[in-house]
Amino acid sequence: MCELLGMSANVPTDICFSFSGLMQRGGGTGPHRDGWGIAFYEGKGIRAFHDPAPSCHSVIAQLIKNHPIKSLVVISHIRQANVGLVCLENTHPFIRELWGYSWAFAHNGQLDKRIFDLPLIFYKPVGSTDSEYAFCWLLDQIRLTFPERPDNFDELTTFIHQCCEQLRSMGVFNMLLSESQYLFAYCSSKLSWLTRRAPFGEASLKDDDLTVDFCQETTNNDVVTVVATEPLTANEAWTRLNAGELVVFHEGLAQDHRAP
Amino acid sequence: MCELLGMSANVPTDICFSFSGLMQRGGGTGPHRDGWGIAFYEGKGIRAFHDPAPSCHSVIAQLIKNHPIKSLVVISHIRQANVGLVCLENTHPFIRELWGYSWAFAHNGQLDKRIFDLPLIFYKPVGSTDSEYAFCWLLDQIRLTFPERPDNFDELTTFIHQCCEQLRSMGVFNMLLSESQYLFAYCSSKLSWLTRRAPFGEASLKDDDLTVDFCQETTNNDVVTVVATEPLTANEAWTRLNAGELVVFHEGLAQDHRAP
Repeated sequence: MCELLGMSANVPTDICFSFSGLMQRGGGTGPHRDGWGIAFYEGKGIRAFHDPAPSCHSVIAQLIKNHPIKSLVVISHIRQANVGLVCLENTHPFIRELWGYSWAFAHNGQLDKRIFDLPLIFYKPVGSTDSEYAFCWLLDQIRLTFPERPDNFDELTTFIHQCCEQLRSMGVFNMLLSESQYLFAYCSSKLSWLTRRAPFGEASLKDDDLTVDFCQETTNNDVVTVVATEPLTANEAWTRLNAGELVVFHEGLAQDHRAP
Repeated sequence: MCELLGMSANVPTDICFSFSGLMQRGGGTGPHRDGWGIAFYEGKGIRAFHDPAPSCHSVIAQLIKNHPIKSLVVISHIRQANVGLVCLENTHPFIRELWGYSWAFAHNGQLDKRIFDLPLIFYKPVGSTDSEYAFCWLLDQIRLTFPERPDNFDELTTFIHQCCEQLRSMGVFNMLLSESQYLFAYCSSKLSWLTRRAPFGEASLKDDDLTVDFCQETTNNDVVTVVATEPLTANEAWTRLNAGELVVFHEGLAQDHRAP
């Protein structure tokens, strides 16, 4: 199993605080020693870092922890390998282009061998993980059904939810997915989220000896949602997603979405 | 105009020395202040860094300069913007997947408006540069002609050369391209290369007060080629490519290739 971390915000926000907590689980307080990766959207652009080494010893992870990169949407992952060797091409998040947008994807869980029987058309995996294969299949399905980017994301969201349900039938499939503006979070077993907005308070990381007073870091209009496999802080009220639930975040806020 | 830097090696080699020289041109000794990027292949995986800020002031560029990342193929670029805003999605190298391989591409030069009339099928640009558009078109052409990865790259090389000639007819098109094992270098106006192998000597950067004795850093079997817009060292014999010339490097060595 792996750990996921996502962020959606309405103003460019750094993820240093949450990333510090996640990073400790990468061989520090957790067993996820098999690499880590993070993708920051900046407009339509994406700044991605991948490292097959444990995050708690990574020079690049240290740089991200200490050097704020501000973004509206972030997807991060630390890995404990099950399917696929520990190597760079098997390190999440995976990235592909569709409609002239860079899609990023990270997966927690394991799918059984049936995943590799699903036909692939446009997108082919570079590595050997079930996760990247599932991502290629998912983007293929989206591309076949929505050859162009739709103006309204309601139908797209329902469609992605249906595809996720199909993937969940093959095992455990917790997922974070984005195309730069929307963050899709799908839960098969474990995923929680928390929206921070005014009045901001203090938060203390479970995994690291670190407390942040968000009051000092934010304005009254800031809205920031963090999504994680397990709640990262001990003193805030996280919402756990149910199995089979998809939540879409846009500019920091959960969007209404009717299950398919 | 921009500056290109590429490397092909037969053993995992760091590019710190050459990158130090290139980085100085990013707002230091050169006018290329509009971002920089670098892609390191590690097996089929790719480790990419993109930054729209000048390389000579970039914290991430400092990290790459000081923290050796070893690779067989590297493509790097520093940008002086002509077409397209200075932003992350317009920062080279651009990356797309074909045949389950991550292709990286960087361009020096400028193509006229006709480039945007070429039809695109599978790949769409995320940003607004002529360069990324040309890359999408080039990969489309390769994909249409070679739906599967060929065993032998001779025909593919000839085909890529033909496509490059077509692009050169629309302006200045110096290019570096790779799929992880082969480095394609095409020259429209300026591109030079140098192969270092035993007996190794000393090299002194033109742009930075730095000398390396490669003897200390290498074994007798190492073969490393560096490709750059302008020679990076003053005391070595670089080969300039002719206009319309394509050279393919594999494991550090230039391959025989007959022009189309």
